[in-house]
Amino acid sequence: MSHAPTATLNERHRAVRRELAARAIDALVVTSRPNVLYLTNFTGSAAIVVVTAAHVHFLTDFRYMTALAESSGTAWACPDLQVSKVSGAYDAALAAVIASRASTRVGFEAADLTVARHAWLNEELARRGATTELVATDGIVESLRIRKDEYEIATLRDAALRLSDVARRVLQDVRAGISEAEFAFEVNTRIHQAGFSRTAFDTIVASGPNSALPHATPGERILSEGDLVVLDFGGVYRSYCVDLTRTVSLGRASARTREVYEAVRRAHGRAIAAVAPGRSRFDIDAAARQSLIESGLGEAFGHGTGHGLGIEVHENPRIGPRRPDVDPTDGAVATGMVFTIEPGAYLAGWGGVRIEDDVLVTSDGVEVLTDVTTDLIEI
Amino acid sequence: MSHAPTATLNERHRAVRRELAARAIDALVVTSRPNVLYLTNFTGSAAIVVVTAAHVHFLTDFRYMTALAESSGTAWACPDLQVSKVSGAYDAALAAVIASRASTRVGFEAADLTVARHAWLNEELARRGATTELVATDGIVESLRIRKDEYEIATLRDAALRLSDVARRVLQDVRAGISEAEFAFEVNTRIHQAGFSRTAFDTIVASGPNSALPHATPGERILSEGDLVVLDFGGVYRSYCVDLTRTVSLGRASARTREVYEAVRRAHGRAIAAVAPGRSRFDIDAAARQSLIESGLGEAFGHGTGHGLGIEVHENPRIGPRRPDVDPTDGAVATGMVFTIEPGAYLAGWGGVRIEDDVLVTSDGVEVLTDVTTDLIEI
Repeated sequence: MSHAPTATLNERHRAVRRELAARAIDALVVTSRPNVLYLTNFTGSAAIVVVTAAHVHFLTDFRYMTALAESSGTAWACPDLQVSKVSGAYDAALAAVIASRASTRVGFEAADLTVARHAWLNEELARRGATTELVATDGIVESLRIRKDEYEIATLRDAALRLSDVARRVLQDVRAGISEAEFAFEVNTRIHQAGFSRTAFDTIVASGPNSALPHATPGERILSEGDLVVLDFGGVYRSYCVDLTRTVSLGRASARTREVYEAVRRAHGRAIAAVAPGRSRFDIDAAARQSLIESGLGEAFGHGTGHGLGIEVHENPRIGPRRPDVDPTDGAVATGMVFTIEPGAYLAGWGGVRIEDDVLVTSDGVEVLTDVTTDLIEI
Repeated sequence: MSHAPTATLNERHRAVRRELAARAIDALVVTSRPNVLYLTNFTGSAAIVVVTAAHVHFLTDFRYMTALAESSGTAWACPDLQVSKVSGAYDAALAAVIASRASTRVGFEAADLTVARHAWLNEELARRGATTELVATDGIVESLRIRKDEYEIATLRDAALRLSDVARRVLQDVRAGISEAEFAFEVNTRIHQAGFSRTAFDTIVASGPNSALPHATPGERILSEGDLVVLDFGGVYRSYCVDLTRTVSLGRASARTREVYEAVRRAHGRAIAAVAPGRSRFDIDAAARQSLIESGLGEAFGHGTGHGLGIEVHENPRIGPRRPDVDPTDGAVATGMVFTIEPGAYLAGWGGVRIEDDVLVTSDGVEVLTDVTTDLIEI
């Protein structure tokens, strides 16, 4: 169970219901697990929620009935909950719930439900004689999740400080003579010791030439004098994800290393300085990108500048170049949004640098949630 | 990268192509990540594969180009590979590949592709003037994955022995005075040390009354004298998952504990004895279930007897009761199938017992891949 207060859950439900009313939809079937968690605090691996005007129908199986019962009556209990115990297949139980109601238009999450499940549900509803129309919806819950509420901001702030503590220890621990894979395990141990329930993704320790690969898998390579080492790791704290990267030099940095490092650091600073409510997320990306172009490293920056953080480690807003084909919105950022700023420069065969922090958009600009020096560290 | 030999990949491709020919489909779009791995050895986080009669079109982004290049020319290189570098959105690149071919009927994986992606693809193909018909397919690659080939069996055998080593150490390490969460972390460390790339799922350490919850999350409860402790953990070794459970008594077991433990152990033995090629998976489940009913514990066994293991930790075959509504096939098991046998008994407020091993169906019956005593251990 997550612990958003009941009043906060109530707010979230009200916002969903406003959207449903605006679209003349009677009920919303929520199958996306992060969305189920957001609406109910439920962190188990299997559940479906149906939000109606009066209730939050909650379908889960016997494995989670005890956990549900234990949260009942607490300050973080989900309001208006109606629990259905699933004993066979989830979608059969869902069809029964839908058919038992007088709903005519029932929304589903088109970005989560597969074509096969959708077809099965439609057939099953017809077989039961239901006249329900299943209506594709797009991002109803996600559009709420993009701006964090007070509970989420407090959780993310706490999580970011814990991850910063991890980073400081990791920067002390890193050393020549250990393999990437072994050091990644040490990082994971630090993450665990700092109170995170798990890593947010597979920890990256990319050394020497591997540092030029933005998504290198830690391997048997031994960290060696003269290496650049990219350390990118994250943790899940009370269901919320934070993410941080630092790049260190093992031994004295060469002039070229210093130059590339300072160029990335400058791009990172420029992007953070560009964050404010109302600013386009494309402009935030452009601030980092333009800075790297000015340093002659435009070609060396192959990914986006950042991604939203929350229940998922990659969520909206995406901070990247404008892509009119798939993402036509202008996308101004707004207060309450939390995302990473992580420009990098990767030079094949030579190495790479990435510097990543987590930021919150505030009414007067930006708050950097993570707190670790960006000075070049030579070990 | 996974390391199935090129000849094995070729066999898998041939089997897919036979299915496509039988359905008069020109090409299959594979979006399911485990299926992509199975067909290409690719273990990255983003790729789409299009299998045609002559080629395996492989769409991925710059992050993985180096890894792909490195596997080229090795003994595990994917044959007939045509790589397209994705620079924008994956589905836009996919639409371009489909539209550029003369395919008329293109299959997609209906159990993986979402309603939203399907609708977008259809619109985009129409916009490009393509006359392609997208055809829903069901389990083409999964139906191959259910019976493991020689490479997979060797990998799973190795993985199961490594996990058995972990289990023996864990059974020595477990002790009163440590919290569930801390001990779960010790188990995870052992899994890492045994050469697994990660845990296959969140390790379960469920003590005392928590042992009555089949999917308990390890918490702050301290393991104490008199507890039953369910230890359920798994690892991913060279992309393949194995899974094992043992239940121990901290201190001398009571007569009731002994009775419940022996009943579960008997059910576990009966289910394993029921495994042979041609036997129905429902009968294997019934062997465990009937045994627990005879011990007066029928009501205490709320889950299925087992699940398939492979690239995913829960895959086919499902070893459970017959559910004609969602699963109409008779489902005889066949040589090469690998699955868990994990009956349990859970008595709310008192505690629970589960015993789990991994088995392979062989031509003359069954091979138990895991190798750890099932005797009741009192610590």
